[in-house]
Amino acid sequence: MANISKILIANRGEIALRIMRSAKEMNIKTVAVFSEADRGALHVRYADEAICIGPAPSNQSYLKSDKIIEACKLTGAQAIHPGYGFLSENANFAKEVAAAGLILIGPTPEAMEIMGNKLSAKAAALKYNIPMVPGTEEAITDINEAKERAVEVGFPILIKAAAGGGGKGMRIVEKATDFEEQMHLAVSEATSAFGDGSVFIERYVTSPRHIEIQVLGDTHGNIVHLFERECSVQRRHQKVIEEAPSSVLTEEIRQAMGKCAVDVARSVNYVGAGTVEFILDENLDFFFLEMNTRLQVEHPVTEMITGLDLVKEQIKIARGEVLSFKQEELKISGHAMELRVYAEDPLNNFLPDIGTLQTYRTPKGNGVRVDDGFEEGMEIPIYYDPMIAKLITYGATREEVIERMIRAIDEYDITGIQTTLSFGKFVMQHDAFTSGKFDTHFVSKYFNADSLKNDSEEEALLAALTAVLLLKKEDKISLAQNNVIANNWRKNRKKYS
Amino acid sequence: MANISKILIANRGEIALRIMRSAKEMNIKTVAVFSEADRGALHVRYADEAICIGPAPSNQSYLKSDKIIEACKLTGAQAIHPGYGFLSENANFAKEVAAAGLILIGPTPEAMEIMGNKLSAKAAALKYNIPMVPGTEEAITDINEAKERAVEVGFPILIKAAAGGGGKGMRIVEKATDFEEQMHLAVSEATSAFGDGSVFIERYVTSPRHIEIQVLGDTHGNIVHLFERECSVQRRHQKVIEEAPSSVLTEEIRQAMGKCAVDVARSVNYVGAGTVEFILDENLDFFFLEMNTRLQVEHPVTEMITGLDLVKEQIKIARGEVLSFKQEELKISGHAMELRVYAEDPLNNFLPDIGTLQTYRTPKGNGVRVDDGFEEGMEIPIYYDPMIAKLITYGATREEVIERMIRAIDEYDITGIQTTLSFGKFVMQHDAFTSGKFDTHFVSKYFNADSLKNDSEEEALLAALTAVLLLKKEDKISLAQNNVIANNWRKNRKKYS
Repeated sequence: MANISKILIANRGEIALRIMRSAKEMNIKTVAVFSEADRGALHVRYADEAICIGPAPSNQSYLKSDKIIEACKLTGAQAIHPGYGFLSENANFAKEVAAAGLILIGPTPEAMEIMGNKLSAKAAALKYNIPMVPGTEEAITDINEAKERAVEVGFPILIKAAAGGGGKGMRIVEKATDFEEQMHLAVSEATSAFGDGSVFIERYVTSPRHIEIQVLGDTHGNIVHLFERECSVQRRHQKVIEEAPSSVLTEEIRQAMGKCAVDVARSVNYVGAGTVEFILDENLDFFFLEMNTRLQVEHPVTEMITGLDLVKEQIKIARGEVLSFKQEELKISGHAMELRVYAEDPLNNFLPDIGTLQTYRTPKGNGVRVDDGFEEGMEIPIYYDPMIAKLITYGATREEVIERMIRAIDEYDITGIQTTLSFGKFVMQHDAFTSGKFDTHFVSKYFNADSLKNDSEEEALLAALTAVLLLKKEDKISLAQNNVIANNWRKNRKKYS
Repeated sequence: MANISKILIANRGEIALRIMRSAKEMNIKTVAVFSEADRGALHVRYADEAICIGPAPSNQSYLKSDKIIEACKLTGAQAIHPGYGFLSENANFAKEVAAAGLILIGPTPEAMEIMGNKLSAKAAALKYNIPMVPGTEEAITDINEAKERAVEVGFPILIKAAAGGGGKGMRIVEKATDFEEQMHLAVSEATSAFGDGSVFIERYVTSPRHIEIQVLGDTHGNIVHLFERECSVQRRHQKVIEEAPSSVLTEEIRQAMGKCAVDVARSVNYVGAGTVEFILDENLDFFFLEMNTRLQVEHPVTEMITGLDLVKEQIKIARGEVLSFKQEELKISGHAMELRVYAEDPLNNFLPDIGTLQTYRTPKGNGVRVDDGFEEGMEIPIYYDPMIAKLITYGATREEVIERMIRAIDEYDITGIQTTLSFGKFVMQHDAFTSGKFDTHFVSKYFNADSLKNDSEEEALLAALTAVLLLKKEDKISLAQNNVIANNWRKNRKKYS
């Protein structure tokens, strides 16, 4: 068993703090690294030791593998936890860490490499007959061959540039008669954008839901899954609300997806915590998307429904311990939801809105967990992801968790910057969400900034009216010291907290 | 079904906030009442409406049933939640509430009356053959009769004044040969103190553990128990650390105690949330002590292990709903512990230490819940119970929950007043506690203020040494921007937070 008595956390913000908390509970010392911009950050204060590794831009600090490894040597840390983002899925970093005689709390560089490339990931998954979105397995340029394949796959289909990215050279074709024209356009667009006209053709899922399965593998070949997370509510193609379990999966599909996820992990002898992402279509058919070879932002919802601490599990696996539970011993208990609180303005297309947290008070009470890395008076630095906190609620049923999330959002008090809290409340109160009938197009389908504006104006008016009514009643009453106060806790807060 | 759309909370502090949170999640409006001393309190700001009911001493405000009922009429609240303490077990108040056409969220006045008196409570419980501490059923004065009874019960025995209280006229007798002398002394002490020399004789439990069972009864005759809480760690005969499940109960004893608790509740047709308290002896025999006809301070540990929200259950019962679960559907999941954070000085015999919360930062993260009623800068008023907060940790095992509690205690940052946090850490690190081999004498057996003092001095010395070592290392390293910071988060905090 590897001795891990001190861990360096190669990350910042909420995830650095979150990792340190688990380490502390395991009686393991922690080393923080930080950029000059993060000198006053909470993760620096929380660690047993902290080392500055360079100026703010990440490529001069949090991405500097040499400095991070040197910091390990200096402090005697035997292991590195990379968190998410930064170097967490960098196979070269994993190799350097191993070469330095240190333990990376994560999978092997080989697993990272295979899953880091869409083609090699699919090739690995195909060995286990994992369902893929129907389409061409290789890039093609021939129009007739393409059309033949498209008809086989069935419309609507998606044409996308093999060399592409960011939606360039991507076209949705609704019916066969439109195919040739759209294919011509896609090929020429791809040629001019990437100098390569070859394209993939695949079935276009009109109402996709994003469902992912958490897996854990130890160094002894045991791999289990910890059920699903649904992450279909996204803005700018990024997750903003996640939950577990999904409101749409049947037990049968859950088992099938879980088995597939374990198989995908097995295809690369996966060690550690990982996530296998799937797309789920209108018919509840699911298709493999990719595997993330690290801890996910949204891992807390899985912790809430399983009672496990995923960071502790990662550390135990890195020490060489055997998983302490079998698949059949794991079960879902209750429901959990996470709202990512971003410093963004939902009224302005979710543009980042950095600044100072003039007020910062977090909600408390039964079933509420806040993972954050800031406190009142701190600046949200411009250099990093604008996520301030993860607001997690847990309860017996999905309905209770939604009610609790609304209560917690109302309790959250942030001034100085715009956040996604008001957007979160909008989602929690929307029929499509509460009924479970939504997909990844939720924001474009249902959200517009005006609905938030109206709500707030109505609320302010109501508060004013209530105050007047209460003051009138007060005149009539006889209690000597009496005094009626219209509650201003929520109503006088700035419009969109 | 009774309509409850607005609830008045006849309480203050953490429990008022805690009740309001559940009401808010049920979309029920809340009315706070407050004394002049509590004008700036959090529960006043959190409520939808708030009414001042008088000056600070409780008998002029929080105990004024007429003002509270008038506040209901004024605001249109249909129901009153009394919390714990104050009017929560006052049968006359319960009658006044009913007479005013309002709903008291709690049991009937009859149940309160029977359980509020030790003799009538025992009489009710005896109908169901609930085990009682062996002894005299009625007060006696005759020495021969007393000795005969004492021999039957077995030594050691306890002689206590029938009219007594506060330990007066109470004597422990170790062996039969000492009995007559001690009985004489007890009777004469009782006569001079209470004008009544009659005494009870009962078995003296040398290593008692305090175990209580949470029960819930609806208005349709359904009563279930929600397992036990162990509350053996006490100071000044008051609970300070509670946990669920108990580390000592077998499943068989748990079932037997649960059944007894349900029977006790049934003996008074109990409606609402209540707690049946037992004493457990060295042989794991248990005896009925009393029933508390209200929500307990330590109810959160039961919430954590059952996934239920007890305040919501209370409200549903008050509305006339049928319990939504049966006994066999309830199960224990994980482990939970509560540390009461009192404004008291553990170095000075737990004397209350009121003042201003100069720093007040609460712990966060996985498995940590803080129920409190204060924020930074607030005063702890002298008029009320000096409990600042309840620090609750939850996890998969007792061991994890203890590690988490230590982590959370270290994270809790309170300056300006002394608290029981350092005492809590002492308990969490004590072998008798971690091994589960403790009883209600824990504090007198193991705790002395010196152990806290030594710890803190050692820690300060260690911190100083670490800082020197780190500074020396710093000279050697080559990273351009490097800087090693000895972590001051914990170590530079005031000695006993």
